[in-house]
Amino acid sequence: MTDLSPINDNPISLELICFGEGHFEKHHITDLSQIPPFLEQEHKFWLNVTSLNNLDLLNEIKVIFDIHSMALEDILNTQERPKVEVFDHFILIVVKMLYTRTEIVDLETEQISIVIGKNYVISFQENKYDVFDGIRSRLENPSGKIRKHGTDYFAYTLLDAIVDEYYAILEKITDQIEVLEEKIINEDKKIRLGEIYTQRKSIQLLKKVIWPTRELLSTLKKTESFLIKRRTLPFINDIYEQSVQIMDNLEMQRESITTLVEIFMTNISLRQNDVMKTLTIIATIFIPLTFLAGVYGMNFEYMPELKWKYGYWFTWIIFLGISIIMVFYFKRKRWF
Amino acid sequence: MTDLSPINDNPISLELICFGEGHFEKHHITDLSQIPPFLEQEHKFWLNVTSLNNLDLLNEIKVIFDIHSMALEDILNTQERPKVEVFDHFILIVVKMLYTRTEIVDLETEQISIVIGKNYVISFQENKYDVFDGIRSRLENPSGKIRKHGTDYFAYTLLDAIVDEYYAILEKITDQIEVLEEKIINEDKKIRLGEIYTQRKSIQLLKKVIWPTRELLSTLKKTESFLIKRRTLPFINDIYEQSVQIMDNLEMQRESITTLVEIFMTNISLRQNDVMKTLTIIATIFIPLTFLAGVYGMNFEYMPELKWKYGYWFTWIIFLGISIIMVFYFKRKRWF
Amino acid sequence: MTDLSPINDNPISLELICFGEGHFEKHHITDLSQIPPFLEQEHKFWLNVTSLNNLDLLNEIKVIFDIHSMALEDILNTQERPKVEVFDHFILIVVKMLYTRTEIVDLETEQISIVIGKNYVISFQENKYDVFDGIRSRLENPSGKIRKHGTDYFAYTLLDAIVDEYYAILEKITDQIEVLEEKIINEDKKIRLGEIYTQRKSIQLLKKVIWPTRELLSTLKKTESFLIKRRTLPFINDIYEQSVQIMDNLEMQRESITTLVEIFMTNISLRQNDVMKTLTIIATIFIPLTFLAGVYGMNFEYMPELKWKYGYWFTWIIFLGISIIMVFYFKRKRWF
Amino acid sequence: MTDLSPINDNPISLELICFGEGHFEKHHITDLSQIPPFLEQEHKFWLNVTSLNNLDLLNEIKVIFDIHSMALEDILNTQERPKVEVFDHFILIVVKMLYTRTEIVDLETEQISIVIGKNYVISFQENKYDVFDGIRSRLENPSGKIRKHGTDYFAYTLLDAIVDEYYAILEKITDQIEVLEEKIINEDKKIRLGEIYTQRKSIQLLKKVIWPTRELLSTLKKTESFLIKRRTLPFINDIYEQSVQIMDNLEMQRESITTLVEIFMTNISLRQNDVMKTLTIIATIFIPLTFLAGVYGMNFEYMPELKWKYGYWFTWIIFLGISIIMVFYFKRKRWF
Amino acid sequence: MTDLSPINDNPISLELICFGEGHFEKHHITDLSQIPPFLEQEHKFWLNVTSLNNLDLLNEIKVIFDIHSMALEDILNTQERPKVEVFDHFILIVVKMLYTRTEIVDLETEQISIVIGKNYVISFQENKYDVFDGIRSRLENPSGKIRKHGTDYFAYTLLDAIVDEYYAILEKITDQIEVLEEKIINEDKKIRLGEIYTQRKSIQLLKKVIWPTRELLSTLKKTESFLIKRRTLPFINDIYEQSVQIMDNLEMQRESITTLVEIFMTNISLRQNDVMKTLTIIATIFIPLTFLAGVYGMNFEYMPELKWKYGYWFTWIIFLGISIIMVFYFKRKRWF
Repeated sequence: MTDLSPINDNPISLELICFGEGHFEKHHITDLSQIPPFLEQEHKFWLNVTSLNNLDLLNEIKVIFDIHSMALEDILNTQERPKVEVFDHFILIVVKMLYTRTEIVDLETEQISIVIGKNYVISFQENKYDVFDGIRSRLENPSGKIRKHGTDYFAYTLLDAIVDEYYAILEKITDQIEVLEEKIINEDKKIRLGEIYTQRKSIQLLKKVIWPTRELLSTLKKTESFLIKRRTLPFINDIYEQSVQIMDNLEMQRESITTLVEIFMTNISLRQNDVMKTLTIIATIFIPLTFLAGVYGMNFEYMPELKWKYGYWFTWIIFLGISIIMVFYFKRKRWF
Repeated sequence: MTDLSPINDNPISLELICFGEGHFEKHHITDLSQIPPFLEQEHKFWLNVTSLNNLDLLNEIKVIFDIHSMALEDILNTQERPKVEVFDHFILIVVKMLYTRTEIVDLETEQISIVIGKNYVISFQENKYDVFDGIRSRLENPSGKIRKHGTDYFAYTLLDAIVDEYYAILEKITDQIEVLEEKIINEDKKIRLGEIYTQRKSIQLLKKVIWPTRELLSTLKKTESFLIKRRTLPFINDIYEQSVQIMDNLEMQRESITTLVEIFMTNISLRQNDVMKTLTIIATIFIPLTFLAGVYGMNFEYMPELKWKYGYWFTWIIFLGISIIMVFYFKRKRWF
Repeated sequence: MTDLSPINDNPISLELICFGEGHFEKHHITDLSQIPPFLEQEHKFWLNVTSLNNLDLLNEIKVIFDIHSMALEDILNTQERPKVEVFDHFILIVVKMLYTRTEIVDLETEQISIVIGKNYVISFQENKYDVFDGIRSRLENPSGKIRKHGTDYFAYTLLDAIVDEYYAILEKITDQIEVLEEKIINEDKKIRLGEIYTQRKSIQLLKKVIWPTRELLSTLKKTESFLIKRRTLPFINDIYEQSVQIMDNLEMQRESITTLVEIFMTNISLRQNDVMKTLTIIATIFIPLTFLAGVYGMNFEYMPELKWKYGYWFTWIIFLGISIIMVFYFKRKRWF
Repeated sequence: MTDLSPINDNPISLELICFGEGHFEKHHITDLSQIPPFLEQEHKFWLNVTSLNNLDLLNEIKVIFDIHSMALEDILNTQERPKVEVFDHFILIVVKMLYTRTEIVDLETEQISIVIGKNYVISFQENKYDVFDGIRSRLENPSGKIRKHGTDYFAYTLLDAIVDEYYAILEKITDQIEVLEEKIINEDKKIRLGEIYTQRKSIQLLKKVIWPTRELLSTLKKTESFLIKRRTLPFINDIYEQSVQIMDNLEMQRESITTLVEIFMTNISLRQNDVMKTLTIIATIFIPLTFLAGVYGMNFEYMPELKWKYGYWFTWIIFLGISIIMVFYFKRKRWF
Repeated sequence: MTDLSPINDNPISLELICFGEGHFEKHHITDLSQIPPFLEQEHKFWLNVTSLNNLDLLNEIKVIFDIHSMALEDILNTQERPKVEVFDHFILIVVKMLYTRTEIVDLETEQISIVIGKNYVISFQENKYDVFDGIRSRLENPSGKIRKHGTDYFAYTLLDAIVDEYYAILEKITDQIEVLEEKIINEDKKIRLGEIYTQRKSIQLLKKVIWPTRELLSTLKKTESFLIKRRTLPFINDIYEQSVQIMDNLEMQRESITTLVEIFMTNISLRQNDVMKTLTIIATIFIPLTFLAGVYGMNFEYMPELKWKYGYWFTWIIFLGISIIMVFYFKRKRWF
C-alpha cells in the first residue's frame, strides 16, 4: 500500500508536470493563463487538480481544454459510478479510490476523474488523500518508460496506482478475516458478530467499487479512439485482469465469511447444548434423591421405616443406587 | 426530496404551458378546442393531465393528438409495468412515481405516462401527488436551458424529477436501515423483526419499480426515432446511469438487511445462552446442597451424625466445599 | 376471475361458432362431416373441442384440418410444457390453464391447445372447467372488435382469457399471504408453517406454468408466419408484458414468504427465550431459599441458631435479602 | 419404467439386428468378419455391444467402422460427460443411463455410447442393465414406424428409451418426496433428516446427468450433418423438450425439499418450545410452594405460626393462592 | 495422482529435451549459449525452467526466444490468474498446479507458464514440485505418439498432466467428504464443523483455479494461430471437457457440504431436544412429589393427617398416583 500523504485542506491546488524524453518541468499553477502555452508545445503534460471546491476555476479549465459540460458534471458529482466516456477529442474516466485511515478496515472513497487528451492528462481529485507520489518520482527519473510513452500510457499508470490500492485493501481485509477465522475456530469467546459484519460491509463496498471499474476497463480495452494506442492495450488488459482477480478473491472472502458465521452460530448451539447437559445431569440425579430425603423428613406418627435400626443406612444405599443407575443411563446416551 | 404538493381530488385538470426561447404562456384548459391551435404554432408546449377519471375527455385528447388506442390503454391501466413504446409520430413512456406520506417509509406508487410528440409533451398523472413544481419554476426562468431544448430534453427533465424521487426514497430507507443497524448492534431490546421486514419490503418495491425503468432507459438510449435528438442522448444516459447506481445501492442495502437479521437472531441465541447459564450455575450448585440438607432433615431414629457435636458445622463445611468445587468447574468451562 | 362453469363429464363435445362482420352461427357438431363446408366459406370459425378421450374423433379432426401427427401428440399429451410450434399452414399453441375449486388456493392445471389456421381456430380442452364464456358473449355482440379481426386476434382473446385467470390466482395468493403476514406479525399462535408452505407451492406451480408461457409469447411475437398479422402484434405484446409482470409479482411474493418464515422462526425463538427467562428467574430466586429452609430443617442436636429467639425472624430477613439481590441482578441484566 | 433385464457378466456380447421395410434378421456375432457384409447391403442394422472389457475386439470394431481414436476413447472412458460429437462419416452420442435396483432411489449410472452411421447404429453399453428390450420387440413388428425410418430415427428411439428411464426415476423421487412431505407435515417422529438427504442427492445426480443431456440434444437439433434428416428433427426436439421439463420438475422438487427441511427444523423448535413450557409451568408453580413448606419444616424453637391452631390450614390456602395466581399469569401469557 | 517428486531448492535448473521421430537427446543446460543451435535444427525441443529466482537468466531466455516483456512479467508474477495470450510468434499459457503434501487436503498452488513456439515448448515452474515425470518417460519411448506430434500436442500433454492432478485432488476431497458424511449421518460425536470448513475451502480454491482454466481452454480451442494445428483441437477439447466435468463435480460436492452442515446442525437440535425432554420428565414428576413430602415435613402442632394411622401409606399412594398420571401425560404427548 503506497503511503497516503495527506493533502492540505486549502483551496484548489494545480500541479502541472510537463514531461517527455529528456524533458521534465514541474509548476504550481496559480494563474490559469499559464496553461494554454503547454497545449501548443511538443511535450506531454499532466495537470493534477486537487479539491473540487472552486467552481469558477473548474469552469475556466473546462473552457481551456474544451471539456463537454456533461463531462464536467460527471467530474463534480462525486457520487458518480465508475465509468469511461469517449468524447471527440478526449476520454473521461471516472474511478473511485479507496483508503482507510485506521488499522481496522473502515473504508472511505474518493472520486478521481481522469481526462486523457492528445498531449495532456488531467486528474481531478477530491481534497483528501493522494496516491500519485510514486508516479511523480517515476516521472523525475530521466530513463523511465513513463516519459517515453504517450498520454494513454500515463493514464494507465494512474489507474494502476489506484488498482494497486484496491489490492492493498483486499489484503488487509483478508488478513483480518483470517484473524477472525482463527478466533472462531478456536472458540475464542470474545469475538462479536459485529466484527464479522464490518468485514462483510468492506467487501460489499469494495465489490461495489470494483465491479463497475472492471466494466470500465473492459470498455476501455475495446474503445476505438485515436487517443488509445494499440501498444497500450496489453497494459490496460493487465489492470483489467487484476480487477477480475480482485473480484474472484472478494467472492472467495465473502463465502469464507458466510461459513464463519455458520461456524460461529453452531458453536453457540454446541455450547448451549453443553450447558443444558450439565444442568440435566445434576438435576435428574438429585431431584429424585431430594424427594426421598423429603419423604423420610415427614412427621407422620406411624412411619415404620423410621424406627428400623438400619433404615438410615439403607436409605443411603438407595441414594447411591439411584445415582449409579442415572450415571449409567447418561453414559449409554453418550452425554459424557 | 422535492416537496410533494397534494393535488385536489376534483376532476381532470389540464394545465398547458407553452414555452420556447423568450416565450412562456400558462393556461388552465377547460375546453379542449383550445389545444389544436398550439399544435400548429412554432413553440413547444407541455400538457399536464392530472387524474385519469374522465374517460370521455381522455378520448378527446386521444383524437386531438392522434394517440394509438393501445397507447391510451397503457396510460389508463395504472398496473402497467414501466416501459417505452415508439409509435410513428410519438413516443410513449410509462413510469412509476414513488412517494411516502409518512416519516416511516411506506411506499405508494403512482403511474405517470409521458407522450413525446414533435412539439408537445403530454404527461398523465393519477390524482395524488405532484413532483413537477420544480420544472414549472425552471420553465418560468427566461434564460433556462429547458426553454431552448426540444421536447425530448423536456421529457428528460420530467424523468429526471421522477428518478430524483427514487434517490430521495433510497436515502430515507438507507437512513432507517442505519438506525436499525445501530440498534441491533447495541442489542437494543425494543427492536422488532417487523421493522426490518418493512424495510425489506420497501427495497423490494423500489427494485420492482427501478428494474424495468432501467430497461426502459436503456431502450430509450438505443431508440432510433426522429423525436430523440442525438444531443439529448448524454442526458438520457445520465439518468440511465443513476438508475443503475440506485440498483447497486439497493442490492447493498438488501445484503445489509440479511446480515442484520442474522445478527439479530444470533443475539437472541446468545442471550438465551446467557439465561441458560445463570439457571444452570444456580441450580447445579444448590440442588446437591438441598439434597444434603434434606438428608439430615430425615427423622430416622438411628442417625449417628445427628448426635455428633460438630455435625452441624461439618455439614456447613461440606456445603461450602461442594459450592467451591462447582464454581471452579464452571470457571474452567469458562462459563463466567 | 371469470366464473368457472363446470363442463359435464360426457364424451367429446364439439362446439362450432362461425363468425364475421354481421355474421354469427353457433352449432353443436355431432357429425364431423358438418365441418369441411365451413373451411370453404369466407367467415372465420372457432371449433371448441372439450375432452380428449375420443381418440378416433380426434384423428378425424386431424385429417380434416390436416394437422401434423406430432402436433396431435402434443395436444393429447397433457403433460406437455407450454410452447408454440409453427407449422406450414397452422400454428399450435399449448398452454396451461390454472384454477382452484376451493377458497384456499389449491391449484389444478388443465392443458389447452390452440390451433390457429387461415380461417379457423380450434381449441382443445381437457374435460374440467371452461373460461371461454366471456368470449362467447363477446362473439354474440354484433359490433364487437372480436368479429372484425382475424383468427390471430381471436387466438389472442383466448390466450388473454387464460392469462387473466393467472392474474386472478395471483391475487388470491397475494391476499392469503397478506393474511398470513398479519397473523405472523401479530404473533397469532394458531398459525402453522404448513399454511405458508401451501402458498409457496402455489407460487412454484404458477411460476412453472408462467415461465414457459412467457417464452412462448416472446416466440410468438417474433414468429414470421402469414397467420400472425402485424397489427395483432401489439396485442400479443400486451399479454407478453402481463406475463412478465406476473413473474415479477410472483418473485416478490416468494421473497415475502421467505421473510415470513424467518419472522415466524424468530418469534418461536423469542417466545422460547421468554419461557426460559421466567423459569430461570423463579428457579434462581427460590432454589437458594429452599436450600436455606432445608438447612434449618435438619435434625442435628447441636444447632445453636435454632435456639436463638430471633432465629426464625432473622432467617426471613435473609430470605428477603437474597430475593431482593436476585431481582436487582435480573433487572441489571434487563431480563424484565 | 421399462423392466431392467440383467445382462450376464460374461465377455462382450455382440447383437446385430438388421432391419428394413419387410426385413428383419437377428444375429449373435461371434466372429467380427461377419459384420462387413452388412455394411454393403441396402438394409440398416443395429449393432449392440454390451460390456467394454475386451479392448482388442473394440479395436477391431473401430477398424471395421473406421471410428476415430478420440471417439473410441470417449466410448471407453465411462466417466465421460454426456455429449455429442459430429465426425465426417458418423455421429457419436455419449449419454448416461440411470437406474436403481432397490425400492428406495439409490441411483447408479451406466454410460451408453451411440454411433450413428449411414446405414448402421452401434450402441455400446457397460455390462449392467439393458433398457432396449422394448425397441427389440418394436423392431420385430413388421409394420412398425421404426423399420421404415433411417438410422437417425433409430438413434432417436434409443435416446427416447433412455430419457423415459429418467422420467421413471423422477417419478419415483417425486413419490418418495411426497411421502416424506406427508410424514413431516403430520409431525411423524420417526422421520430422519438422512432420508431427505438421500432424495436431495438423487436430485443432484439426476440434474448432473440431465443438464448436459439437454445441451447435447440442443446441439443435435442444430447439427448440420447429412446423417440427421430434417424430418427426424421434430422427434429430437420432442426429447429435448422432455429433458427441459424434467429439469423444471427437478428444480421444483429441489425447492420442495428445501421447504421440507425448514418445516422439519421448525417442528423441532416448536416441540422444544412445548417441552420447555411444560417444565417451566410445573417448576415455577411448585418451587415457591416447596420453599414455603421447607420454611415450616424448620426446627427453630420460636416459630409462632407453628403453634397457631389454623396455621396448617392457612398454609394450604397460601399454597392454593400462589398456584392460582401462577396459572392466571401463564394463561395471560397464553402458554396454555 | 502422479507421484510428486520434490525438486531441490538450488538455483534455476534448465532441462532441455530435444525430441522427434527417432530422435531423443536430454541436456542439463548450464550455459545459455547452448540453446540457440536447437532453434535452428529440425527437431522440436522442450525447455523446462524450474525456479524463477534468477532474473538475469530469465532475461537472457527472453532475449533468445524473443519473448515479449509483458509475457515475461506474467511468467514472473506468480499471482497471475490462469490465462492464455496469443503473441505473434508464440502462445503463452499460464496455469496453476495444485498439490497437497499431507493426507488431509491442504492445497498449495504453484504457477506453471507454458510458452509454445514453432519448434519449442518452454515450461516455467516455481521451485516446488514437479508433475512432468510421466511425460519424460513417454518422451523416452521411441514409438510414443508424443514424439511424432508437434509442439502444440506437446503443450497439450503438459496441460493434461496438470488437469490430471486436479482430478486427483477432487477425488481426495470427495473421499474426505464421504467420510464426513458417514460420520455425520451416524451422529459421530467427535466431528467438528472445522473439518467441514476445510473441505469447503479446498473446493473454493479448486474452483477459483479451474474456473479461469476452463475459460483459458475454451479460448485456446477458438484460437486462430498457426501454432495450434487443427488435428490437436480434439485433444484440447478433451481437457476442456474434463475441466467442465470437474466444475460440475465441485458444484455437487459444494451442495453436499451445505446439506451436511444442515444435518449436523439439526442433529445438535435434536440432541438438545432429547436432553430437554429427560430433564423435563424427571423434574415435572418429582417436583410436585417433593413439595408434598415437604408439606408433611412441616412442624405445625395441629396437622391432623400426621396423627392418622394410615397417613404415611396414603401419602405414598398419592405419590404413585401423581407419577402415573404424569407418565401417561408424557406418553400421550409422545415424549417417550
